Amino acid sequence: MNNKHISILGSTGSIGTQALEVVRANPNLYKVDALTAQHNADLLIAQALEFKPALVVIGNENLYQQVKSALPNTKVIAGEEGLIAAAQLPQTHLVLTAVMGSVGLRPTIAAIEAGKDIGLANKETLVVAGELVMDLAKQHDVKIIPVDSEHSAIFQCLVGEEQNEIEKILLTASGGPFRGKDSSFLATVTKNEALKHPNWVMGAKITIDSASLMNKGLEAIEAKWLFKLKPEQVEVVVHPQSIIHSMVQFTDGSIKAQMGVPDMKLPIHYALAYPNRLKTDFERFSFLKYPELTFSKADTKSFRNLELAYIAMERAGNMPCILNAANEIVVDAFLKDKIGFLEMSDVIEACMEEMEFVSHPTLNDYLKADELTRAFASELVTKQSLTHLK
Amino acid sequence: MNNKHISILGSTGSIGTQALEVVRANPNLYKVDALTAQHNADLLIAQALEFKPALVVIGNENLYQQVKSALPNTKVIAGEEGLIAAAQLPQTHLVLTAVMGSVGLRPTIAAIEAGKDIGLANKETLVVAGELVMDLAKQHDVKIIPVDSEHSAIFQCLVGEEQNEIEKILLTASGGPFRGKDSSFLATVTKNEALKHPNWVMGAKITIDSASLMNKGLEAIEAKWLFKLKPEQVEVVVHPQSIIHSMVQFTDGSIKAQMGVPDMKLPIHYALAYPNRLKTDFERFSFLKYPELTFSKADTKSFRNLELAYIAMERAGNMPCILNAANEIVVDAFLKDKIGFLEMSDVIEACMEEMEFVSHPTLNDYLKADELTRAFASELVTKQSLTHLK
Repeated sequence: MNNKHISILGSTGSIGTQALEVVRANPNLYKVDALTAQHNADLLIAQALEFKPALVVIGNENLYQQVKSALPNTKVIAGEEGLIAAAQLPQTHLVLTAVMGSVGLRPTIAAIEAGKDIGLANKETLVVAGELVMDLAKQHDVKIIPVDSEHSAIFQCLVGEEQNEIEKILLTASGGPFRGKDSSFLATVTKNEALKHPNWVMGAKITIDSASLMNKGLEAIEAKWLFKLKPEQVEVVVHPQSIIHSMVQFTDGSIKAQMGVPDMKLPIHYALAYPNRLKTDFERFSFLKYPELTFSKADTKSFRNLELAYIAMERAGNMPCILNAANEIVVDAFLKDKIGFLEMSDVIEACMEEMEFVSHPTLNDYLKADELTRAFASELVTKQSLTHLK
Repeated sequence: MNNKHISILGSTGSIGTQALEVVRANPNLYKVDALTAQHNADLLIAQALEFKPALVVIGNENLYQQVKSALPNTKVIAGEEGLIAAAQLPQTHLVLTAVMGSVGLRPTIAAIEAGKDIGLANKETLVVAGELVMDLAKQHDVKIIPVDSEHSAIFQCLVGEEQNEIEKILLTASGGPFRGKDSSFLATVTKNEALKHPNWVMGAKITIDSASLMNKGLEAIEAKWLFKLKPEQVEVVVHPQSIIHSMVQFTDGSIKAQMGVPDMKLPIHYALAYPNRLKTDFERFSFLKYPELTFSKADTKSFRNLELAYIAMERAGNMPCILNAANEIVVDAFLKDKIGFLEMSDVIEACMEEMEFVSHPTLNDYLKADELTRAFASELVTKQSLTHLK
C-alpha cells in the first residue's frame, strides 16, 4: 500500500487524537496533509510539530497569532475558509471529518466536490443534509466511510455485498444509563447521572444523547441516508453489552453482524485503512468475558427522543435538521441545569411543530432552518428555565 | 443473471431435496443438468421427471433397470462412473456434492478437474483429503462454496475481505443434547437420547456426531483447509441457541458473524446463488424470540471426540482420514447398539494409534488408510460388542 494522504478536520477531539495515534503507529502508511482545531491551540501546535502537515487551521481567529508564531514554517489559516482549504488539498486522498456539530457540513461538501473520500465522524452532516450529501458523493464517485461504531459495523457487513439488497439493518443501542426506566424516573434524573454511560467513554453532548436515545435516533437518520434505506428498514435493538455493533439483514434472510469490545479505536482504524485491515494489538473480544449477549425492543414511550427522531426521519425534508438543531440547544441547556431531562423532548417536539417545513431543501434552506430552530429552541428553553425558577 | 447450470450429486438426501426446492422456486435462474442417488430410485425418477436433467445416475446397479425404464428418453448411468460423468458435464457451472461419506471424494475431484465450481455439502471431501482438494481447486481456479451452515457463515463473512488476514475463526457448536454432562453421564446414554438434537433436524449419522462433538471436530478440520488456517486459528465456541452460525476475527480485532434461524435452507440457497442473494420468504430471525444468546467453552475432557479431532488436525497427513473412517464405523455400531457412547472415542483413539501414519498422502494413500481403518475399527467394535454380551 502506498502512503495514504489524509486531512483531519477536528484533530484535537477524541476521534481526531485517536486517528493520529493510528498514524503514529503506522508512519509508512499515512501522511497527514492538514490538521484543524477550533479552540485547542496548544494541542494543535504540538500535533503539527509532530506530524508536519502542509496546512494547519485554527477555527477561533483570536488564536491565529499564537498558532502562527509557533509554526513559522507552516501555512496557517484561521476560520471557516481554512476548514474548506483543508478539505480540498490536491494531494489528499481521505478527509476525516471529526469536527463537532453542523459546522462540519460545509467542509464535508467541499471535500466531496474536490473528489476526496470521506471518513465521516461528523453525525450532523448526514442528519442535517443527508440527501444532498449522498447525491453529491454519488456524483463525484466518492466513498463515505463512516466512523461511528454502528455505521462502521454496517459498512463492514456490506463489504462484498454491493450487488445484494438490504432487507433491514439492526442498529444496536446500549440503552444508556437509564435503560428499563420509565418517564416518572426520567423526570427526575440529573446531569451527573445522565453523564455516566455504561460502556462508552465519549464527550458530554453525545453521552446525554445516548442517555435520551436521541443518539440512536440521529444514527437511524444517518444510516437511512448512508445505506439508502426507507425508515421502516432501520430497526433499533437494545443490546446492553455493546458487543454487536450493528447488523444487516439481507433479502435472503441472512444476517451479518460486526462485533468487538466497545472502543472507537477500531472503527477509526478501519476507516483509515479501508478496504484493508491492519494488524492491531487492541484488546480482543472474548466470550469468556461476555458469556451472555442480551437483546430487547427500544422503549420509545419513555424515551420520546427516539420516537421524535423516527418522525423526523419519516417526514424527511428539513425536519431532521430541525430535530438536530433543537436537540443541540436542549442538551446544552440540560448540561447547564436550565431544563430537565424530559423537557428536552418537549422543546424538540415544539420546534418540529412550529418551524417551517421544507420538503426539498437546498443547502441554504438547511442553514436557515438550523439557525431559526436554534433561536426558537433557545427561547423555549429560557421560558422553561424561568418556570423552574418560579 | 443467466441460467446457472447445476448438477446435484445426492439429490434424494436432505440437502439434495432442499436444493431442488430452491430450483423449483426459481425456474428462471437454474437449470438442472444431472441428478444422482444411491438407492432411492423412486424419488430420483420423480425428480428427473420434474426437472428433466440430461443425465440421471443411480449408484446401486441393481436399480438401473427400474430407473431406465421409467426414464426412457433420459441418459441413465449406474455406479461410480456415473457420478464422475455427472460431475463433469460440459454445460454445468456448479456441482453440488451432497452425497454422504467418503464416496463423495472422487466425483468432487473430477468436478474440480473439469473446472466446475463446487457447492460442498460433503464434509468428508475436505476432512479426508483437504490438502489435495484445495490444491486442485486453486490449480483449476475453482470456487469451493461450503453448504454446511458454519462454513457458509464464515464464507459469507469473508466476502469482500479477500485482501485481509484472518486472525482466527470461531466455530459455533450447539453442544448437542448432552451439553453440560460429564463422562459418567455420557457412559450411560442411549441411541435414542443421542438422536434428539435440540436445534437441527438432520440425518442419524450427523446427529450422533453432533451429540459426541465429533461433528464439530470434523468441521474444524474442514474449516482449516477451506480457509487456509493453522489449527490454533480454529476455535470452537459452544452457543446453544445456534443463532450465530460462526464468526471470523480479523487481524485488526474486528469480528464478523453470520446469523439466522437454524435452517439448512439458507446456506443451500446461498451456495446456489453465490455471489448473489435471492429474496426468500424463509422464517426471519427475531431478537424478541431470542432475547439471550449464550456462549461457553467446549468441554473436550468429557467430549473426547473433539479433542481427538484436534489431535488429528494437528498431526495432519492421513490422520484426519483415519479419524473419519473410524468414526463412521463406530457411529454405525452405536446406532446398532453394538457399543456405548464413550466406547466410540476408545475405538477411534485406538485406530489413530495403530494405523500407519503417512505425512504426505496421495489419493491412493487416503483410500488405503480409509479402507484399512474401517476394517480395523470393525474388528475392535466386534471385540467390544462381544465384551458387552458377556
